[in-house]
Amino acid sequence: MSKHLTKRADDYSKWYNELVVKADLAENSAVRGCMVIKPYGYAIWEKMQAELDRMFKETGHENAYFPLFVPKSLFEAEEKNAEGFAKECAVVTHYRLQNDPDNPGKLRVDPEAKLEEELVVRPTSEAIIWNTYKGWVQSYRDLPLLINQWANVVRWEMRTRLFLRTAEFLWQEGHTAHATKAEAVSEARQMQEVYATFAEDFMAMPVIKGYKSDSERFAGAEDTLTIEALMQDGKALQAGTSHFLGQNFAKAFDVKFTTKEGKKEHVWATSWGVSTRLIGGLIMTHSDDNGLVLPPRLAPIQVVIVPIYKGEEQLEAISEKVAVFVKELRKKGVSVKFDDRDTYRPGAKFAEYELKGVPVRIAIGKRDLENGTVEIARRDTLEKQTVAQNDVVDFVSNLLEEIQDNLFQKAIDFRTEHTTSVYNFEEFKTAIANKGGFVSAHWDGTEETENKIKDLTKATIRCIPNDAKEEIGTCVFSGKPSSKRVLFAKAY
Amino acid sequence: MSKHLTKRADDYSKWYNELVVKADLAENSAVRGCMVIKPYGYAIWEKMQAELDRMFKETGHENAYFPLFVPKSLFEAEEKNAEGFAKECAVVTHYRLQNDPDNPGKLRVDPEAKLEEELVVRPTSEAIIWNTYKGWVQSYRDLPLLINQWANVVRWEMRTRLFLRTAEFLWQEGHTAHATKAEAVSEARQMQEVYATFAEDFMAMPVIKGYKSDSERFAGAEDTLTIEALMQDGKALQAGTSHFLGQNFAKAFDVKFTTKEGKKEHVWATSWGVSTRLIGGLIMTHSDDNGLVLPPRLAPIQVVIVPIYKGEEQLEAISEKVAVFVKELRKKGVSVKFDDRDTYRPGAKFAEYELKGVPVRIAIGKRDLENGTVEIARRDTLEKQTVAQNDVVDFVSNLLEEIQDNLFQKAIDFRTEHTTSVYNFEEFKTAIANKGGFVSAHWDGTEETENKIKDLTKATIRCIPNDAKEEIGTCVFSGKPSSKRVLFAKAY
Repeated sequence: MSKHLTKRADDYSKWYNELVVKADLAENSAVRGCMVIKPYGYAIWEKMQAELDRMFKETGHENAYFPLFVPKSLFEAEEKNAEGFAKECAVVTHYRLQNDPDNPGKLRVDPEAKLEEELVVRPTSEAIIWNTYKGWVQSYRDLPLLINQWANVVRWEMRTRLFLRTAEFLWQEGHTAHATKAEAVSEARQMQEVYATFAEDFMAMPVIKGYKSDSERFAGAEDTLTIEALMQDGKALQAGTSHFLGQNFAKAFDVKFTTKEGKKEHVWATSWGVSTRLIGGLIMTHSDDNGLVLPPRLAPIQVVIVPIYKGEEQLEAISEKVAVFVKELRKKGVSVKFDDRDTYRPGAKFAEYELKGVPVRIAIGKRDLENGTVEIARRDTLEKQTVAQNDVVDFVSNLLEEIQDNLFQKAIDFRTEHTTSVYNFEEFKTAIANKGGFVSAHWDGTEETENKIKDLTKATIRCIPNDAKEEIGTCVFSGKPSSKRVLFAKAY
Repeated sequence: MSKHLTKRADDYSKWYNELVVKADLAENSAVRGCMVIKPYGYAIWEKMQAELDRMFKETGHENAYFPLFVPKSLFEAEEKNAEGFAKECAVVTHYRLQNDPDNPGKLRVDPEAKLEEELVVRPTSEAIIWNTYKGWVQSYRDLPLLINQWANVVRWEMRTRLFLRTAEFLWQEGHTAHATKAEAVSEARQMQEVYATFAEDFMAMPVIKGYKSDSERFAGAEDTLTIEALMQDGKALQAGTSHFLGQNFAKAFDVKFTTKEGKKEHVWATSWGVSTRLIGGLIMTHSDDNGLVLPPRLAPIQVVIVPIYKGEEQLEAISEKVAVFVKELRKKGVSVKFDDRDTYRPGAKFAEYELKGVPVRIAIGKRDLENGTVEIARRDTLEKQTVAQNDVVDFVSNLLEEIQDNLFQKAIDFRTEHTTSVYNFEEFKTAIANKGGFVSAHWDGTEETENKIKDLTKATIRCIPNDAKEEIGTCVFSGKPSSKRVLFAKAY
């Protein structure tokens, strides 16, 4: 199968689309811009959810669920937020279908069943949640509210791509309320940190932590913190954002609390989210021309065992041996699949698991039985090795860790090679056009410059890194003074 | 707090509504008929999900995700299904809002952004899923497809109640495809069995397994299997259904496969689901006039520990002791909360956890420290007992199991007392009117009789029990011959 995959060097975008479909991750649906997440893709999402959910709970958050729909009047309450999302809202206007008198067997919208007030399908839930928080917050004793929601949201994007940008997507959205500005700022930072840890330790995807320029900020936020990853084609991916919302939503929905001193004050807010877009980032960080490459910590199947046999008797002897490894590996928490289907040949199975990015493949045949060995292949480097059966369990445990580390290190190295510090606009243009990746440059802080650079190069400011050094410099475009380098890149 | 709860005997329905809100489970939202599931209610749902998901996976199912929207033309393809849901569909007709020129600061639907084809917000996903399966199934090697989805669905119900009937609700929906009728029938039965096991072993809610009469069947199904529970007010609750769909959807969406023998045949289907309605059932099976009563296996907090102290020093001494229990109990997998908030008094905490149905409460004060004891109260019977500190861990572990068993046994006894076999229509009417509960009666098998009984008594056929004995009888209403008793009840 993998031989039919377009090569990355030939057409990265085509390679990506083909891989997503051929590795059974997702496909386009009958609904424009909406995807079907297939079981193998969804299993990756479940692994991501489990780790993130654990991290959210460890930092004191609880899950809840708020309505899918937002009445238009609530939606428009926070004006900047409403303006930011208005152009991409799916709107429910009716609540009933009826038989179409002109087309027997067909249905039409019942014109009598028009809603008094239209309902927006949530593109994000600040409005409906802050309208709810109004009833939950009276006193300082009710704060902080630390709530997360796992949900689907809809943004009517015109150009969509599987996982990266879809009209409907799955995500989590945290929405917190605090008594003080300092607490809210620190919550927003904490969640940026949680996202970065998840991206690096589980996805093996290095990220730059930073904050957005005014023009790239979330609609309705005072400050947007981001984690930015670099894909193999040199384009950046915004992988997660955490917003300090100030008192904007508290004011729009009149959410006040009584302080210990008996004063009434507006509450401070954050919101933060990551989505199924992360799966797109995972794919584009590690995969190769042979197919998907998955970091062991998020791989639904970490180890696959393929028997190579002729006849029932050999299969039985192999199965008996394999049962021992499987049991031992599972005891160590390793997810193992023994693929003894007789409807496919070993070669077809090898190709399938390579395409699907299973980190470790064990093959065992007649000669291995005689020699007390197995053949172990690792997906990241495609290297194979003969290992004694007695050593399999320890070898595989170590190998999984080694693969996880290797993938992360490779991605770090790639990013280092593709991060260029530039000193003038010629260098800037050359770096963006020829090499891609992050370009670190001084910027004068104006939206005007930002827009001009975008028009000329398609590169945008991905973030102002948290750890950007204070230094005296001049804007790469305008020559005006600047005190910090920011990161530019073309982006998904 | 609990003293403000309406008594069940006074107004069961009011008691239920108050309890859901006061125990912090859920509340009505700004969107008509849609609820907000609060963290404590959602934590119960998470516990339910975890167990069900495990059971689905153990029976070979995988999760996936399909679009929220169904294009109208797909929705109407299976006519009976479409007809069954058409009257309660939320319909998306537009994909953009714009500034309202007549109302500055307000938004309106952009008339230019009308969809060519309306999108139905899924009331159930057979249509979109079977349209997808068409591309997934070619050969017998692709079967069975055993897929589940955790999702939100929308049914525009006119009369809604928290958890029991809401316009939007959360559920899981399994959708399977099989090569033979026998396999599909057996899958539908297996899932009924899974639901019954979950209801009885985890919810401690006894259920009758049976199948629906023609008029109560799912729109588009050949057979609907159900689990029916009995609530404390004598009304039945349909708690989960599993449908054998025959080839109806395969034919509507032209899903065929090549058999081993090379023939083309339509695929056989099932679908099955349970929803957040189960939380309503859980509440109404066990709770009392003091508030919620939760079975330990689904309680988000199984044990709460409340310190009774004066001053920092006493609290410290107590906390030190408590840390030991907490650690030991957690090691045993028990979820424990130590509530050392200094903003509430012990009495207020006792009332809160009673209202919230925490199965076991441990109180520990100065005298307990001196005596090496604690006071343990169980929520189901409200009994209190003094227990030596050294015995706490074992005592609590056993007590949690005892409470789980006791709740189930109480519910079984209640159902036994409220199941009446009747022999004529007078007895039938008396049983329904005075006693409530299940009425076991002979029925002639016609929809006409079913409807007349419903008109006269409001009771419907909840199910024909799987284990109904063949016996010679006469219909309780028409006097015509009947071979089996069926179960009638008023229902939610």
